[in-house]
Amino acid sequence: MANYGFGLDLGGTTCKCGLFTTAGELVEKWEVPTDTSNGGANILKNLAKAVLTKMEEKGITADDVSGVGIGIPGPVSEDGVVNRCVNLGWGVFNVEKEFSECLGGMKVKVGNDANVAALGEAWMGAAKDFSSSVMVTLGTGVGGGVIINDKIITGATGAAGEIGHIRVNYTEEKACGCGNKGCLEQYCSATGIARLAKIRLEKNDDSTPLRNAEQLDAKAVFDEAKKGDKVAVEIAEQAMEYLAQGLQVISAVVNPEAFVIGGGVSKAGQYLIDLAQESFKKITFHGCANTKITLATLGNDAGMYGSMRMIL
Amino acid sequence: MANYGFGLDLGGTTCKCGLFTTAGELVEKWEVPTDTSNGGANILKNLAKAVLTKMEEKGITADDVSGVGIGIPGPVSEDGVVNRCVNLGWGVFNVEKEFSECLGGMKVKVGNDANVAALGEAWMGAAKDFSSSVMVTLGTGVGGGVIINDKIITGATGAAGEIGHIRVNYTEEKACGCGNKGCLEQYCSATGIARLAKIRLEKNDDSTPLRNAEQLDAKAVFDEAKKGDKVAVEIAEQAMEYLAQGLQVISAVVNPEAFVIGGGVSKAGQYLIDLAQESFKKITFHGCANTKITLATLGNDAGMYGSMRMIL
Repeated sequence: MANYGFGLDLGGTTCKCGLFTTAGELVEKWEVPTDTSNGGANILKNLAKAVLTKMEEKGITADDVSGVGIGIPGPVSEDGVVNRCVNLGWGVFNVEKEFSECLGGMKVKVGNDANVAALGEAWMGAAKDFSSSVMVTLGTGVGGGVIINDKIITGATGAAGEIGHIRVNYTEEKACGCGNKGCLEQYCSATGIARLAKIRLEKNDDSTPLRNAEQLDAKAVFDEAKKGDKVAVEIAEQAMEYLAQGLQVISAVVNPEAFVIGGGVSKAGQYLIDLAQESFKKITFHGCANTKITLATLGNDAGMYGSMRMIL
Repeated sequence: MANYGFGLDLGGTTCKCGLFTTAGELVEKWEVPTDTSNGGANILKNLAKAVLTKMEEKGITADDVSGVGIGIPGPVSEDGVVNRCVNLGWGVFNVEKEFSECLGGMKVKVGNDANVAALGEAWMGAAKDFSSSVMVTLGTGVGGGVIINDKIITGATGAAGEIGHIRVNYTEEKACGCGNKGCLEQYCSATGIARLAKIRLEKNDDSTPLRNAEQLDAKAVFDEAKKGDKVAVEIAEQAMEYLAQGLQVISAVVNPEAFVIGGGVSKAGQYLIDLAQESFKKITFHGCANTKITLATLGNDAGMYGSMRMIL
């Protein structure tokens, strides 16, 4: 049996690369710049080179590598076909097959980056004690991943875990990036929370330090809310009520053991979790009301861990 | 390998029993009254007797039976523990273990009745060409089941597939039976549609044959809508918009290949499906917008089929 594997987390700027033992220890991590020129044609070649060079450097033979997992920023089918990655310049092709060829036939598994991060948290992070969990990543947008029986639910068209596009407001007039209206992403992403803050400040003249904030963003909102500013608390509560509504419907569909909250916004920490949990309990079907809501623990490494997990 | 199996669908009045070949042919079906006296203590004994008698009658030995599957009207954990069935008088106990003892040690699998019906439709019914599907049963209430890779998603507390309690209206003031407000069940169940109709008729004096309906129920609404009555069309569209909102969020979570619509209300047929599909396309994330929505085909037999499928 092989002792090593690679977990890669490919983004539009760099690819985070991890060399792991099959027991799940991260031996070494490094980054490779993403070359998006020429429709991203060099990306997989560069990554294959990086992997093969690392193996040579460490004296690891192909026989001792169980495979290479890679998370990519776009929808992927169960059999490894990507359906466009705007950030990379990619169209539609079988990443699994092509990357494996670049790697001299090594086993490759491909997943969507948000799904793969969820798998990482489920394997070695916040949800490692649970066989089912749903991760919600509150970043510039809102992403997610659904893990059932320790496996990613990919969905018929790779769109499972598109948590950010659960509709949580049926009266919204502004369109989401996806074209619909009232998506979770419009309220719980970093940009969504900044928008809620702007709307709240425009509502009336209530005094709040947020009016003097250098940047009216999610961080400012949570920082001031923790200090007890009433207006900031209102905005933070509103955002977490929307999040709870998203978690409520997820519970009614797959009823996971735990929710893992990650992404930049989650740096607000336990305060954010407490607000979400309180709101969730109020609106959730009794059988699910005690579902654990917890902070992600692997940070930016989650994708590498999840990619490694895919090949095991 | 065994050639036969039993699929049972236990309700508060009777238990539908099916003798199947392992290839999925329903050889014979019959019903056994449900004895709810004494906290439902005789139910499993009676059913075991019914199964053993049928085996004797048909000359089928225990070796030739792969097992007995049973769907029950309450939440069940992955390992067969029921958590109260009000309709049966049952509390908390391991149905799998107890029923197997009544059956002389035969293999038993237990599932929630709505989940099991979804599995039946996925195996031999409307979703037999798909490995992932979600069934939504529009009956007195709204139930459902989530099937991924040909298996039921049970959930951490047996509450997966509680489609009826997805929240689709955040401004509702009337409480659902579950205690929350704005659940899908409040708009798409038979009672929910009757309620929407009542609210619509009270809104103004618009003329509609529904005012003279013997019973202002879901059937009357769909019958008049099909004949072109404007008010009835409005009500039917409203109900199917709510259904579409439920299907939208399910898509964003598990992105199934197909939705199967069953239950009494679905007797309205393709007209109902067309309304739901139209509404769904309008509000759904593009990657999921072409998910098939289709009528259940097994009717009241779906539960027996799904129970049989569980033991294979």
